[in-house]
Amino acid sequence: MSTVDEGDRLAAASEGARAVGAGRVGIGMVGTAFMGAAHSQAWRTVNRVFELPATARMAVICGRDAARTEAAAARFGWAATETDWRALIGRDDVDLLDICTPGDTHAEIALAALAAGKHVLCEKPLANTVAEAEEMAAAARAAGTVAMCGFTYRRVPAVSLMAKLVAAGRIGRIRQVRACYLQDWLVDPSAPWTWRLSADRAGSGALGDLGAHVVDAVRFLTGAEFEAVSALTETFVAERPLPGGTGNAPVTVDDAALFLARLGGGIVGTFEATRYATGRKNALRIELNGSLGTLAFDLERLNELEFYDGTQPSGEAGFRRILVTEPDHPYLSAWWPPGHLLGYEHAFTHQARDLLAAIGGGEPVRPSFDDGLAAQRVLDAVGRSARDRAWCPIVH
Amino acid sequence: MSTVDEGDRLAAASEGARAVGAGRVGIGMVGTAFMGAAHSQAWRTVNRVFELPATARMAVICGRDAARTEAAAARFGWAATETDWRALIGRDDVDLLDICTPGDTHAEIALAALAAGKHVLCEKPLANTVAEAEEMAAAARAAGTVAMCGFTYRRVPAVSLMAKLVAAGRIGRIRQVRACYLQDWLVDPSAPWTWRLSADRAGSGALGDLGAHVVDAVRFLTGAEFEAVSALTETFVAERPLPGGTGNAPVTVDDAALFLARLGGGIVGTFEATRYATGRKNALRIELNGSLGTLAFDLERLNELEFYDGTQPSGEAGFRRILVTEPDHPYLSAWWPPGHLLGYEHAFTHQARDLLAAIGGGEPVRPSFDDGLAAQRVLDAVGRSARDRAWCPIVH
Amino acid sequence: MSTVDEGDRLAAASEGARAVGAGRVGIGMVGTAFMGAAHSQAWRTVNRVFELPATARMAVICGRDAARTEAAAARFGWAATETDWRALIGRDDVDLLDICTPGDTHAEIALAALAAGKHVLCEKPLANTVAEAEEMAAAARAAGTVAMCGFTYRRVPAVSLMAKLVAAGRIGRIRQVRACYLQDWLVDPSAPWTWRLSADRAGSGALGDLGAHVVDAVRFLTGAEFEAVSALTETFVAERPLPGGTGNAPVTVDDAALFLARLGGGIVGTFEATRYATGRKNALRIELNGSLGTLAFDLERLNELEFYDGTQPSGEAGFRRILVTEPDHPYLSAWWPPGHLLGYEHAFTHQARDLLAAIGGGEPVRPSFDDGLAAQRVLDAVGRSARDRAWCPIVH
Amino acid sequence: MSTVDEGDRLAAASEGARAVGAGRVGIGMVGTAFMGAAHSQAWRTVNRVFELPATARMAVICGRDAARTEAAAARFGWAATETDWRALIGRDDVDLLDICTPGDTHAEIALAALAAGKHVLCEKPLANTVAEAEEMAAAARAAGTVAMCGFTYRRVPAVSLMAKLVAAGRIGRIRQVRACYLQDWLVDPSAPWTWRLSADRAGSGALGDLGAHVVDAVRFLTGAEFEAVSALTETFVAERPLPGGTGNAPVTVDDAALFLARLGGGIVGTFEATRYATGRKNALRIELNGSLGTLAFDLERLNELEFYDGTQPSGEAGFRRILVTEPDHPYLSAWWPPGHLLGYEHAFTHQARDLLAAIGGGEPVRPSFDDGLAAQRVLDAVGRSARDRAWCPIVH
Repeated sequence: MSTVDEGDRLAAASEGARAVGAGRVGIGMVGTAFMGAAHSQAWRTVNRVFELPATARMAVICGRDAARTEAAAARFGWAATETDWRALIGRDDVDLLDICTPGDTHAEIALAALAAGKHVLCEKPLANTVAEAEEMAAAARAAGTVAMCGFTYRRVPAVSLMAKLVAAGRIGRIRQVRACYLQDWLVDPSAPWTWRLSADRAGSGALGDLGAHVVDAVRFLTGAEFEAVSALTETFVAERPLPGGTGNAPVTVDDAALFLARLGGGIVGTFEATRYATGRKNALRIELNGSLGTLAFDLERLNELEFYDGTQPSGEAGFRRILVTEPDHPYLSAWWPPGHLLGYEHAFTHQARDLLAAIGGGEPVRPSFDDGLAAQRVLDAVGRSARDRAWCPIVH
Repeated sequence: MSTVDEGDRLAAASEGARAVGAGRVGIGMVGTAFMGAAHSQAWRTVNRVFELPATARMAVICGRDAARTEAAAARFGWAATETDWRALIGRDDVDLLDICTPGDTHAEIALAALAAGKHVLCEKPLANTVAEAEEMAAAARAAGTVAMCGFTYRRVPAVSLMAKLVAAGRIGRIRQVRACYLQDWLVDPSAPWTWRLSADRAGSGALGDLGAHVVDAVRFLTGAEFEAVSALTETFVAERPLPGGTGNAPVTVDDAALFLARLGGGIVGTFEATRYATGRKNALRIELNGSLGTLAFDLERLNELEFYDGTQPSGEAGFRRILVTEPDHPYLSAWWPPGHLLGYEHAFTHQARDLLAAIGGGEPVRPSFDDGLAAQRVLDAVGRSARDRAWCPIVH
Repeated sequence: MSTVDEGDRLAAASEGARAVGAGRVGIGMVGTAFMGAAHSQAWRTVNRVFELPATARMAVICGRDAARTEAAAARFGWAATETDWRALIGRDDVDLLDICTPGDTHAEIALAALAAGKHVLCEKPLANTVAEAEEMAAAARAAGTVAMCGFTYRRVPAVSLMAKLVAAGRIGRIRQVRACYLQDWLVDPSAPWTWRLSADRAGSGALGDLGAHVVDAVRFLTGAEFEAVSALTETFVAERPLPGGTGNAPVTVDDAALFLARLGGGIVGTFEATRYATGRKNALRIELNGSLGTLAFDLERLNELEFYDGTQPSGEAGFRRILVTEPDHPYLSAWWPPGHLLGYEHAFTHQARDLLAAIGGGEPVRPSFDDGLAAQRVLDAVGRSARDRAWCPIVH
Repeated sequence: MSTVDEGDRLAAASEGARAVGAGRVGIGMVGTAFMGAAHSQAWRTVNRVFELPATARMAVICGRDAARTEAAAARFGWAATETDWRALIGRDDVDLLDICTPGDTHAEIALAALAAGKHVLCEKPLANTVAEAEEMAAAARAAGTVAMCGFTYRRVPAVSLMAKLVAAGRIGRIRQVRACYLQDWLVDPSAPWTWRLSADRAGSGALGDLGAHVVDAVRFLTGAEFEAVSALTETFVAERPLPGGTGNAPVTVDDAALFLARLGGGIVGTFEATRYATGRKNALRIELNGSLGTLAFDLERLNELEFYDGTQPSGEAGFRRILVTEPDHPYLSAWWPPGHLLGYEHAFTHQARDLLAAIGGGEPVRPSFDDGLAAQRVLDAVGRSARDRAWCPIVH
């Protein structure tokens, strides 16, 4: 990647922008890594695919390292750069703060942004502590702007369809849940240390990173709240090599978190988040057993939804693989013909779509900061339950 | 099926018998229902398929109801009938007691049989209480005969292969387990009451019926002992109609049991047994994540084993569906050509095979009554943990 | 396996027999190899599982080698042996000839058996030539006894269910078929020569062995006749080692046979039989596309049937995996609870069931010798089409 | 989306542009429908994801209808519009013609573009006739510019990986192929008539639309040429309603095309393209059976590749599901972490990537127009074989 000339800057500045005037929403994104790339792809694409009352303008990308931020701006198509998020918030061309940084920074940035009258999209987990999350949720409730927590997987079309089928009563009353998020990137004990393995930076390990998705997805799909949990957490490898051969650093977060839960409405379930499920690369799996049927989803086959309709005669009932690519499936009418798959990144585009629709239409959008707070309370209870070796209630 | 004439009696008496003299093992089976049918099929088949040092003789079937027992004898091919298990034990033509009755009767029958110098095959769970199981295990250790607990699924070829691959170190050190046994035959609230829903008769519900298999399979596959559990149990439907429209009877057992566990060697896992997983008919699922690979099994596809070999280059690694029908797979050389599937009942034939080999060869065989006891201790701890809402250690 | 004493003989003689008098059907089986084992298992089991108006008596097994035949009798449970099939037909205790020999011997044995007033079950293919098959079918039509051709896979429950769903109009008008039977046991060029590779003995290779099943299954499922075919056949390895290191023998049959076909009712399809599909062990796969839905089956997952019901709303339609183990599925009420799988051999037991029911009830049964003839005509046309490199019509 | 203001025009003009000077490649796209949308997404994304020696500039989109073309420009992000492709070719800001129109127009546009010294990307099929394709291929060979035929599926990562494994000898010598492309959008007889059902416009039906992909994929994967085919084609529904209720129009193309083929190296195979496979939405399926293994792909699970490695011991061999999302898989290092899926559109981005790399690096790229011609010769032979009901050789 060479340099970014001024023409490119101007060009990139209006990336995705077609409508004029009030419909433009200037995006200011904090973070230049994996999430930054995914969000950039979404902002670049959303108005090319969906008809919306507001148009994203990729205004400013912000990172601490000036050179890396410049490179990211050029690569991803942002019009300007900042190295201080406070400056970012102060800019007139930024209407929405898109926070893609580690969890320990979320509260400060989000609170400042809301105070400045900006819209906010905050990556999950909403915060590293319940206290921070409560403050953020309160601020969001008080603000006149839109605040959204980035539990993106709600907008994988198969997950959205799953929620629709639940809401339509197609599986009856939900009785059991089994949900896990399985990855394996830490199986190798020589895999290097990263900030994600530091309790100070990441808050927790698999729990906050992966378990947060599990908790939000189950809240979203069942409409029920977690009431109590019993958990265990485990760190399988105690320290890991620092990059550059400068010795080892301790792993201060969980490698795996397992918990039982009771939810509202008499639902019970098993839950798990791990980075040690060898061979499972990105398996967020959720199964809901209801009195009339079952729904099952696996993020490694994200275009598919399994549906068992127990109201069919037993002689012909069976798990049905719905290929979620039909025009009448959520978000799909804007994309390709039936059978033409979507990928991971599309959920981010759908998130951007619904966020812009909310901003343009003046409507609330979920997952809200309250949803982020609710998830954080569950994660916190899980952590305490594991530490205390006792059931821990969740107070809402 | 009408009557059994004398010629048939004689014929059936030597059912499966080909070898002469000391090699004959007279079987006396208690129980005439589902398990009785499955065991009968195994005894009838085992010496037709396997070369063994001992030959099963289907001597006597025993049930409380004379007419039903006669009918079962005729149907399944037993030479004689008894209606009192004590009389059965007293017969000279009975060398092995095959106990297929509800759990509350296991201890009394098995202890008497061992005391009389008989071999014993006892269906799982070994007993309804730990105290009974301890007494049975002590008696079995002291006896000069073979005592086996009927955790049949160890002998599904794919499960046997799974154990072999673990023992050969192919998945390295096991770190995580997720295991569940999902059925759905109680989802309909109008499904009738049976003895299986009575704590007095069955001891527990899904826990003892299905959870026992989960616990034994995981002990068998990992070679590790459960050390502590945190559990919840739930009864979703409190009472059910008695057959014949004579009112309702209370359900005094669990419909679902969920638990977390720590096992020896630092293994952690989630476990579940349920009769409410709509659409899951017989899904005993076990996944073992090790430092070098993963193995996964599902009883609804019992001829298949999923193996992820993490030592392969990442560019070509993947979950491998091993169709467990090759001559070099466990038990398979005696059956059909590759790709020709086995069914549920074959595991019973394999169990009979190994039991006869142990009797003929004077070798011990597992699962022993000690294995049955170990499982019972885990189930007992799960029950107490659920009741007390606390982690419960398992003392061995 | 040592010797068979007289008592065992008597015992085995009445193997499976419980009812008295006219209901007994004495079986005389020709052939002691793989098919002999599978049929023996079926005769031994059928009356233990199903209520039937007739009872199989495993009377006589016949093979050319006396010692091997004695051993097979002892192993499989036959009461007597013969080494000459003509003697077998002459016996009063033989009511039904069960022909499990290579195809070149079928006609002579079956014709003699029918002439002697015996019932006949003849393994597929019915004969090695159309002329023989025509003579056999004519004899069967003229006979007062039951004649059945052993296309056993019609009685895999999932295949039976598939036929029922087609007949019920659930997939509407069938337009396309793709059907193949994939094995791989000849992939290794050093695999030894067998009689199955000789045109003189086997008639053809993959075509008659595997293609016959494909043709019969498609006729059975669609109810349509093959009208014309265009085919190619290929022999990938021209000669193979004789067992015992006595040099090589030529392969004079096809290793793979591929064909297109037009069937009655405007159906078109692709068809294939091969022994070179590396990794496919026993994959008889049939997919039927109709105007209202699709049904798909794979013998490597023989307990499952895939059903796409195109009359469901597009938003929730999908391929449904029916686990064919419910009591209301064909043959299943006699077996185990839902979710407890059946295996390869069960289809033979179902075949024996329906054959005994036909004999006992005086009803015809299919596949008849006419069905065997129809399949043979298709195979013959495939062979000629491949040789002449031209479309070849099938005249019925 | 309403109007496009001038600023947006300028912005969009440099869409994707970061590098300066000679590295810019001005794209002129003809076509505004489905393929236009997919190609636009690719041009917009490619330089955001991949490091390349050339940068796409979305210069001009061209369509016959001015209003629709303006709308497409605004929607997809093109800097300018034309309504005459000749004017497009005459523009200095267009370096590459991206031809996304129906097949009957390909030859004239491509020949003119090549004559004008432009690079060309031409959608498949290359042309509607062999004569046109020959002329185009000759022109491409003579031209000093890059000409590529849009067989995009070569660049689905799993397909690219499949080709790599074949080339590395991992499945040995290929003996058999079974390949089909199954869709179902014409199953409903009331689905409206479109230009795709007109022989004049589309050349052929399922054959050219879907069969072309099958043929190219098999040529790509095996490296072998088709030598002879025997085919049948079928039109199931003879006429269809015109949009707007203005009566019916005849369907003059095939609904399904089935063929057998012999390829170089002794490969034989079955092939099929259909729009009537109810429930199959986009199932391009290719299975290659080699002497050492098998590879299988299905576009409905495009992130997965099935690999059976026959060199593994039989006791642990099995079909391995490779989740093609690892950094060392083709194209993947530029995308998301392992287990994060790609979608249909990504293959277009990869195509753009390789085309820009070829232009920037002065290297040839495949599929070339010669590849397009080779596929067209096969399709032509299939059509003739079906008409003449005879095997038809393919002359190269």
